[in-house]
Amino acid sequence: MKIKIVLGLLLILQSSLTFSQSSIIGFEAHQVAQQKNLEAEFDKMLSADNLDQWMKFMSAEPHYLGTAYGRKNAEWMVKQFKSWGYEAKIETYQVLFPYPKVRLLELIAPEKYKAKLTAVPVAGDAYTDQGDALLPSYNAFSTDGDVTAELVFVNYGIPADYEELEKRGIDVKGKIVIAKYYGSWRGIKPKLAAEKGAIGCIIYSDPKDDGFYAGDVYPKGAFKNATGVQRGSVMDMPLYPGDVLTPGYGATKNAKRLDRKDAPTITKIPVLPISYEDALPLLAALEGQVAPPSWRGALPITYHIGPGPAKVHLKLTFDWQLKPAHNVIAKLKGTDFPDQWVIRGNHHDAWVHGAADPVSGMVALLEEARAVGMLAKAGKKPKRTLIYCAWDAEEPGLIGSTEWVEDHLEELQQKTVAYINTDGNGRGFLGAGGSHSLEAMVKEVATDVMDPQKGVSVAERLGARDLLNGGDGNPGLYALGSGSDYTPFIQHAGIAALNIGFGGENSGGEYHTIYDTYAHYKRFKDPDLAYGIALAKTAGRIVLRLANAEVLPFEFGAWHTTVQGYLTEINALTTNMREAVEQHNAFIDKKVFSLTADPTQPFKQPVKKAIVPYVDFSPLHNALANLKVTVEALGEKSLVSLTSKETLNDKLMHAEQVLTFASGLPRRGWYRHQIYAPGFYTGYGVKTLPGVREAIEQENWEECQSQVTILATTLQKFDAHLQSILVLN
Amino acid sequence: MKIKIVLGLLLILQSSLTFSQSSIIGFEAHQVAQQKNLEAEFDKMLSADNLDQWMKFMSAEPHYLGTAYGRKNAEWMVKQFKSWGYEAKIETYQVLFPYPKVRLLELIAPEKYKAKLTAVPVAGDAYTDQGDALLPSYNAFSTDGDVTAELVFVNYGIPADYEELEKRGIDVKGKIVIAKYYGSWRGIKPKLAAEKGAIGCIIYSDPKDDGFYAGDVYPKGAFKNATGVQRGSVMDMPLYPGDVLTPGYGATKNAKRLDRKDAPTITKIPVLPISYEDALPLLAALEGQVAPPSWRGALPITYHIGPGPAKVHLKLTFDWQLKPAHNVIAKLKGTDFPDQWVIRGNHHDAWVHGAADPVSGMVALLEEARAVGMLAKAGKKPKRTLIYCAWDAEEPGLIGSTEWVEDHLEELQQKTVAYINTDGNGRGFLGAGGSHSLEAMVKEVATDVMDPQKGVSVAERLGARDLLNGGDGNPGLYALGSGSDYTPFIQHAGIAALNIGFGGENSGGEYHTIYDTYAHYKRFKDPDLAYGIALAKTAGRIVLRLANAEVLPFEFGAWHTTVQGYLTEINALTTNMREAVEQHNAFIDKKVFSLTADPTQPFKQPVKKAIVPYVDFSPLHNALANLKVTVEALGEKSLVSLTSKETLNDKLMHAEQVLTFASGLPRRGWYRHQIYAPGFYTGYGVKTLPGVREAIEQENWEECQSQVTILATTLQKFDAHLQSILVLN
Repeated sequence: MKIKIVLGLLLILQSSLTFSQSSIIGFEAHQVAQQKNLEAEFDKMLSADNLDQWMKFMSAEPHYLGTAYGRKNAEWMVKQFKSWGYEAKIETYQVLFPYPKVRLLELIAPEKYKAKLTAVPVAGDAYTDQGDALLPSYNAFSTDGDVTAELVFVNYGIPADYEELEKRGIDVKGKIVIAKYYGSWRGIKPKLAAEKGAIGCIIYSDPKDDGFYAGDVYPKGAFKNATGVQRGSVMDMPLYPGDVLTPGYGATKNAKRLDRKDAPTITKIPVLPISYEDALPLLAALEGQVAPPSWRGALPITYHIGPGPAKVHLKLTFDWQLKPAHNVIAKLKGTDFPDQWVIRGNHHDAWVHGAADPVSGMVALLEEARAVGMLAKAGKKPKRTLIYCAWDAEEPGLIGSTEWVEDHLEELQQKTVAYINTDGNGRGFLGAGGSHSLEAMVKEVATDVMDPQKGVSVAERLGARDLLNGGDGNPGLYALGSGSDYTPFIQHAGIAALNIGFGGENSGGEYHTIYDTYAHYKRFKDPDLAYGIALAKTAGRIVLRLANAEVLPFEFGAWHTTVQGYLTEINALTTNMREAVEQHNAFIDKKVFSLTADPTQPFKQPVKKAIVPYVDFSPLHNALANLKVTVEALGEKSLVSLTSKETLNDKLMHAEQVLTFASGLPRRGWYRHQIYAPGFYTGYGVKTLPGVREAIEQENWEECQSQVTILATTLQKFDAHLQSILVLN
Repeated sequence: MKIKIVLGLLLILQSSLTFSQSSIIGFEAHQVAQQKNLEAEFDKMLSADNLDQWMKFMSAEPHYLGTAYGRKNAEWMVKQFKSWGYEAKIETYQVLFPYPKVRLLELIAPEKYKAKLTAVPVAGDAYTDQGDALLPSYNAFSTDGDVTAELVFVNYGIPADYEELEKRGIDVKGKIVIAKYYGSWRGIKPKLAAEKGAIGCIIYSDPKDDGFYAGDVYPKGAFKNATGVQRGSVMDMPLYPGDVLTPGYGATKNAKRLDRKDAPTITKIPVLPISYEDALPLLAALEGQVAPPSWRGALPITYHIGPGPAKVHLKLTFDWQLKPAHNVIAKLKGTDFPDQWVIRGNHHDAWVHGAADPVSGMVALLEEARAVGMLAKAGKKPKRTLIYCAWDAEEPGLIGSTEWVEDHLEELQQKTVAYINTDGNGRGFLGAGGSHSLEAMVKEVATDVMDPQKGVSVAERLGARDLLNGGDGNPGLYALGSGSDYTPFIQHAGIAALNIGFGGENSGGEYHTIYDTYAHYKRFKDPDLAYGIALAKTAGRIVLRLANAEVLPFEFGAWHTTVQGYLTEINALTTNMREAVEQHNAFIDKKVFSLTADPTQPFKQPVKKAIVPYVDFSPLHNALANLKVTVEALGEKSLVSLTSKETLNDKLMHAEQVLTFASGLPRRGWYRHQIYAPGFYTGYGVKTLPGVREAIEQENWEECQSQVTILATTLQKFDAHLQSILVLN
């Protein structure tokens, strides 16, 4: 009796101790312990000191595309990879990159003010005092231009803002607009301004979004001081990313190139980013209507919309040259399945020093690769081939990764299991986005990585935040829009992809400024690089599981639930639009707008809107209903016990490609994925079920119905693909 | 056939023309036309020129309590009333009024700054250049004090803000707090600060709420410039308003008075209002935690909470004197029911010139009274007695009206039909609050008054705004809290009351500053005084219908619907509190707060809260269910055809008193009304079903249950009172 009790206790103890080791998706039960031991060994090899030293080294000088220091970093990484046992090389593309020659912005009426366009060096951070080495602030892929016109304040310069201007009877035709950063990806601002007839665009960081309003400014605190300027690309990436002259194919040395004047992703109007110090005199000189409350920032002025009397002169010319983009590609051949590739990447180019963006992620990748290499040297080689990549030219438009994917498209589509991306990293919470067929695997990994601050798993900490925000405590992957190098993989090539990082406790205003330095990072971001190590542990586990799993860890239950949720959203979207239009029209009948308008304020009588038709979504509902049956059957099937694993894995790794449509999305065929795309008018912001959703948003009902057909067909093919797994023995 | 058609058209035309004349609540069908004709005549007599001239005259100089100009205005009004046929006189009370002798506020560390405490005169407005005649900015009924301490920023200084401070582990004990105006009535700020242990309180107008953020500042625009200071009383009015030394009885010359040190409505700590120019150096000198986003204002600084290192010295001494408050009381005797009084009032004292507050409302009342007087001289005398009142000493604490009501309490309760209040008035939408038994009458009136700008009735314009804001287009009366002279009538005496005004298109920052001048009003408020005329038409109609109705126009359907709504709110309040506590406690069990806290920020582990018990609201539900039957029966009864109208009207005019409870609300017996009261911790903001609601909010469950009993008994008495009408013949 006594013995039995003790034995019972032991069993309970053992089962609780080994609970987290009881299963790993894609691994047979008897292999789980071995993989977990491998991961434990991997963890032990990771050193925060390496991250620290490498960050200091890589971010010592500005290293944007085409710089000597960028090349030096690439060559240094190749050497490092080689020393860890990788076949490493630099693959270079020749890509168009504009360097600013003339940047002139002046207020010429009613007062004169010449914008300084220069951020000041700060005490205690010598990196900010490197003078001409610091890339002048500008927006890459702004067109050249020399324009003079009245100024109009357009808030964030997104579609809703132009609707508001329209309501107020304000036209930006022939004007220069000034828009705040945020609210959308920056490239949307000049794109939309040009569509509306503006002839120039200024973008500034309002201190409300990015300055003293948020917290103490650098160097006292982490936030943007009055002189800081966010650089950044304004290339029309939602059309296609990568080299503007070689859409859809690699920008190899002798590739055929578009004439620059024909390149559709260069902006139509000149655009320049400025600091809030420079924006203040411009905004203060505006008159006309007072901006609505949600438009107002934190500058100590009454925000007016204009147009004028402020009049500005904007002159921009660039040195348009082909520059070499040096991607570092490091391979570690798989023992069992050398032609199944797990690709892992982070970019290495930065706008200036880029300690946070991208070096914090880059050094975590390097340390992860070093540990994996050491394990391999010790005989623990991956079963599948690993390819570690350090991309160049991400900042100007995902150029390095896009050219590489375009250049190697067929082979990549054939061989790649998945692409795992990282970028800048910081202190806080796990952020994981990507293909929902990988959600179950990522969740398992997240329960095995400990949070450096809290002594619980990063999954548990993330779950706590989700509860606090009203969720169920079990958040899934976010959907990928754009903004980093996963885009060519998932959205063009149809390769399952993930984007992984930590953050939420590292806010600041250094993004794309001269203040994103090692000094800033060590004070405000992840001082002991503990979250860099957490990132290496997380991404490394994902890589090692993808590399060694008997059955590739794809799971379609979460995928189905998520996509079903998107369809529900789209249904609600049309219903809400319909109700809003009905109400709007009823309000016009009842004179609600005219009766409530203040007659001392400008008022433009709104007109009735076309009713929102009922769209036949049934093909989508049916396709997803059928998929549900398939997915559930697949969930009940023990894949690890199948004998035809080769066929199985081949089908699993190619499933994501079935979700693409060869002709791509309307008016932007480069984007082929039917579930995820960056928004045509949001930029980085994702649009799920993009063909259908954007047709609805643009009220293009004919296109909506045809996109429903394309999407339904895609889902049916996906169903057939999964059913072909279901019949495997 | 042809003739028939024409006749039919004529009938349609006639019926549409006379539609609005088809009925008036309380009037027999055959009397409706006569009353409507009277109102049309009344309308024609009203002159905007009078309003303009009188406003210019009355607001030419500062006329706060005790000034020569205040007395001059009162005497001038008596003369005017007499010339219009009224018996008019001044009734004077001797009330305590503090005048500032010493006002010193200085930052003494880490830098030195001495607050200017002076608003600047502005070009184009000579009224602002009257030097010493302008009352220095201060908060009346601040105690004397001389304190030095570290500063803490407490946002609006309301209960939720102290909860936030508590969460962050910040204590104001022994500190001086600086709070923004708004978020509550100002008197709550020093009251709560003192309860929390602070030793001094500074109140400032943040430009976000009241300055350049809202619009261009004076004199360019209507809003508060950097030097403007809002004066105002901080007397603890939610305890009792009126003279601080004579609670509950008239402050007649020989009345027994409290010692000043025993006056419970004088603040416990010194408090001073300042401009944002003076607040800036103080706030900029704070360190410590960054204030949460919702706390941050529009000054160009990072808002920190402190405490310190900013240290301030605040010294205030006042000249505490009895001053004469001159109420103007003008009677026009009713022909048929001289002992049924319709009382109409507006205050005449202002903090400085008070063109908007109160003169804009005062001159509309005068013009209304003039027209009514002219009608009477022409033989169209009111059936009931009208009493027009111009109150003194409203600004320091509703003193003139309160002393008068307390002094004449018994007679007023016996004879008053209703009290109709107005105050500052402006351009825009009708705002009408008050006893819901008068809602049906007010709605009828609102359909008969045309909006000066839109060519539709003020009801239709208000309905349009309600639709725009998501309502059903048929808004009722708002419930009265406090903030003007209706308070002693409804909440102390139980006299049905209304508060009427126009606004919404006259925003600005002049409130209680030296900028509330005739010049400002004519530019930004109601330039042609058209809404002053609309106010006279609205209030005049209400007065004339109350004066002449066969049956007093009380109706209880809207009352019941409204009060039932309050009960529903209270039910939901406890449910929401219960769910919030349950979630809070569950979050503690799941470590949600500690796991999500940023370890680099101060964190105080929250503790579990007591569960919210289920309260027995059934006595209220039952009382209201019974009342519903009574009210519906009353709605079906033709009151105008009853023979016993004398009894009927007597019962109708005294119904509101049945809603009072003689011992008043807990800890503030002066407030007797069981349906409406100003909030103990909101000040002006109303709390409906206050005894029960505030017990819930304070989580005093024992008191809650006893207040349910009191309220249910009150409602039962009200039911019995209405039933006694039901049996009349």
